[in-house]
Amino acid sequence: MKFSVTVILKKDVLDPQGKVVQNTLKDLGFLNLKNIRQGKFFEIELNENDEQKAKNAVKQMCEKLLANLIIEDFKISKTK
Amino acid sequence: MKFSVTVILKKDVLDPQGKVVQNTLKDLGFLNLKNIRQGKFFEIELNENDEQKAKNAVKQMCEKLLANLIIEDFKISKTK
Repeated sequence: MKFSVTVILKKDVLDPQGKVVQNTLKDLGFLNLKNIRQGKFFEIELNENDEQKAKNAVKQMCEKLLANLIIEDFKISKTK
Repeated sequence: MKFSVTVILKKDVLDPQGKVVQNTLKDLGFLNLKNIRQGKFFEIELNENDEQKAKNAVKQMCEKLLANLIIEDFKISKTK
């Protein structure tokens, strides 16, 4: 069973890396760019047939290792 | 108009960062983990009402800056 996880800084947390990307894109001529934020992406494959159990395991992975819940939010979605 | 972009290493490219995460998760007790790959995630907001133009701009951003096409693939999706 495969899942996609995105981890991104919470709205109120400064994203200096995203800001650098934003400025560079503006310098490259993308003047209609309003905002860009950078985060992490994980593609996770599990040996587990029970969807609910698999989803719970992925959630625990996020909470224990992949995301820093103080400053980051995560989103899990199943990929076919 | 808002887009999500994921950038991930091509299938045949080694992902040492992902391997470290995978080993750490196994050490934490997630024994049903089969595979994990790590990539980048971008949330891009554009001042552009024409969806086709906006999508093209995001594609160009990926090609010019966000992804290294030799070793990475990218995927663009529109968020509401």
